[in-house]
Amino acid sequence: MKNTLLTILAIFTLAVSTNKAQEAIWNNKENSTPEINPDNSVTFRLFAPNAKEVKLSGPWMPSVGWTPGTVNMIKDEKGFWTYKSPALNSDLYYYSFYVDGMKCADPKNMYQYKDGDNISNMFIIGGGNGDFYKVNQVPHGSVTRRWYDSPGNGMSRRISIYTPAGYETSVEKYPVLYLLHGMGGDEEAWISLGNAIQILDNLIAQGKAKPMIVVMPNGNVSQEAALGQSSIGLMQPGPRFPHTMDGKMEETFTEIVHFMDANYRTIPKKSSRAIAGLSMGGFHSLHISRYYPNTFDYIGLFSPAIMPDPRMDSKVYANFDGSLKQQLENGYKLYWIGIGNTDFLYKGVKDYRSKLDSIKMPYIYRETDGGHTWSNWRAYLSEFVPLIFK
Amino acid sequence: MKNTLLTILAIFTLAVSTNKAQEAIWNNKENSTPEINPDNSVTFRLFAPNAKEVKLSGPWMPSVGWTPGTVNMIKDEKGFWTYKSPALNSDLYYYSFYVDGMKCADPKNMYQYKDGDNISNMFIIGGGNGDFYKVNQVPHGSVTRRWYDSPGNGMSRRISIYTPAGYETSVEKYPVLYLLHGMGGDEEAWISLGNAIQILDNLIAQGKAKPMIVVMPNGNVSQEAALGQSSIGLMQPGPRFPHTMDGKMEETFTEIVHFMDANYRTIPKKSSRAIAGLSMGGFHSLHISRYYPNTFDYIGLFSPAIMPDPRMDSKVYANFDGSLKQQLENGYKLYWIGIGNTDFLYKGVKDYRSKLDSIKMPYIYRETDGGHTWSNWRAYLSEFVPLIFK
Repeated sequence: MKNTLLTILAIFTLAVSTNKAQEAIWNNKENSTPEINPDNSVTFRLFAPNAKEVKLSGPWMPSVGWTPGTVNMIKDEKGFWTYKSPALNSDLYYYSFYVDGMKCADPKNMYQYKDGDNISNMFIIGGGNGDFYKVNQVPHGSVTRRWYDSPGNGMSRRISIYTPAGYETSVEKYPVLYLLHGMGGDEEAWISLGNAIQILDNLIAQGKAKPMIVVMPNGNVSQEAALGQSSIGLMQPGPRFPHTMDGKMEETFTEIVHFMDANYRTIPKKSSRAIAGLSMGGFHSLHISRYYPNTFDYIGLFSPAIMPDPRMDSKVYANFDGSLKQQLENGYKLYWIGIGNTDFLYKGVKDYRSKLDSIKMPYIYRETDGGHTWSNWRAYLSEFVPLIFK
Repeated sequence: MKNTLLTILAIFTLAVSTNKAQEAIWNNKENSTPEINPDNSVTFRLFAPNAKEVKLSGPWMPSVGWTPGTVNMIKDEKGFWTYKSPALNSDLYYYSFYVDGMKCADPKNMYQYKDGDNISNMFIIGGGNGDFYKVNQVPHGSVTRRWYDSPGNGMSRRISIYTPAGYETSVEKYPVLYLLHGMGGDEEAWISLGNAIQILDNLIAQGKAKPMIVVMPNGNVSQEAALGQSSIGLMQPGPRFPHTMDGKMEETFTEIVHFMDANYRTIPKKSSRAIAGLSMGGFHSLHISRYYPNTFDYIGLFSPAIMPDPRMDSKVYANFDGSLKQQLENGYKLYWIGIGNTDFLYKGVKDYRSKLDSIKMPYIYRETDGGHTWSNWRAYLSEFVPLIFK
């Protein structure tokens, strides 16, 4: 009878691999990739005997402007192309192969890093920050994709909600972090690219962060949901969405806060509300927190896209300085700004800090290496979350 | 001030595309792919000027055994490779390019179809079944990934739960469908490959199905969660898991039913419980429903992996015939079996039907074209769900 089972197992296994030749080399140690070596260097291998040139791209290579750096891989006599990276810091990394100029996914690594239509493969190096980004054996929160009514945007919209371990079976009320994505992102971005669920689970389990609800809305208010999850169907990303950074997100944000307070056991008070976001989400967090200047005690601006002079045709931006001063007068517990020293938004942040300094508005400033990257945003979230609701 | 915005927009847009040359052809109509033509034929295009040979594979091509069929694409003078399919039925389709023998994702289609480590691109042809698989503007249920304690398996385990639109704001109790995946699948499979959420949302909105809770557990009981979502880290799929089809899933299934009845507004009665699954999940559904012979009124076996003689060292399989008769005596409302006429499991199902006939155990039998495919399982779910809880 075991034979029947084994036959079925064998058939299923075969079905997964579409190519016998590939199958034959599958179990070859030589073929495992990416291989993290004991010194945290990483060996990449690709079997492409017909290729004339194979390059590898990864964020540890110096980029030229917006063009990521690449290295040439070296071919051996069997048709394997190989490259060994320098020792890397603990983090989550992505990489891509370019085979004769064409970007190709790693056929030996099922783990992908999908940033809009830009799809790479990924791996994690532990022993530091990377450990926060892993699923560990700790109590796990729940993650729900739910839809809320947005009369202000004339549609039902998808929203991602993290409730901490124990939420469902307790009667406690919880503070809420509103966590916003950047341009090109959606209600999935902090989960799939930012590892927010793992960061929260791990920090809460270690006692470093308070149990909290985390709400991840879609900041493109003309969208019902992430691409592929809405009624527009399987559209490819095209021109940017209408109503992006025009005040509509800020105007309709109260709908989200009301939805959360009406439907979850939140503590519906300023002292139990935080708002943070990256890039465009940092812009949103800045403006939402001052437009509703007595609503959030904790504000996190991660590489925020600060515009000195946003569109004045929205009432949201009409009284920038006045509402900022109001926010200052009303008081808050934390105004946290983080940016990388090579970020293209660095100067905007520098100018904004001068503005804050000039009105004596206190803030914590965190400058890191690097640019406008998820590596920085994951690290900022890991630093920010332990500071809130204390 | 709009200029500032536009500059930032432009920079973000550039950041997404890593290659100026690709960018230049992006907006070319010639370059859109896959293009669904008015007659439901589909045109595929790939820009690969350096390639010597490009093939395309899709499920509408006759396969040779387990090896999917391929066709050669034709290169034009600009470096585009093209293929036009015959007119296709309304369904969800996947496809892959093979560039000089290497499987490559379509760089112009961000929508993927990820079956274990086998990653293809996808598209949907509407006008029939395909419309059930799309997100439409209908009330949407919520989908939660949550963890439950499984003392029987000695771990906390991840489970996917669909609650229908209105669940959170009503006081009603709901019937529950337990929906099981096949070998190689996990608690994500019915969501990502089976489009179960869209099928349920659409059928409920059209009044064709009763609002119900759908529970999608992980049937590999040695796993905490899907690969990449558990504490074993970013493991590549390797040898199959222990405790697969050895009785452990069936033995510990009561934990899941108890968890649901304790934590959700279920109707905790046989008449409001259904269990269905595909392939290995059909095997599980068969055995769970007879091992607990007075628990489910609705049973769905989709291309079930029926083994005439499962492992007798588990008490679950020790009294196969006896418990089946007990299930018959206790009564049930629907025993539904579906299979494709070219499915490699066809004979097992035929033999099982003879067994059922011999004990006069009533069932509905649905034979379709095709084999052991998600195309069939999505269709079976769409047929099965309207029949239950009526």
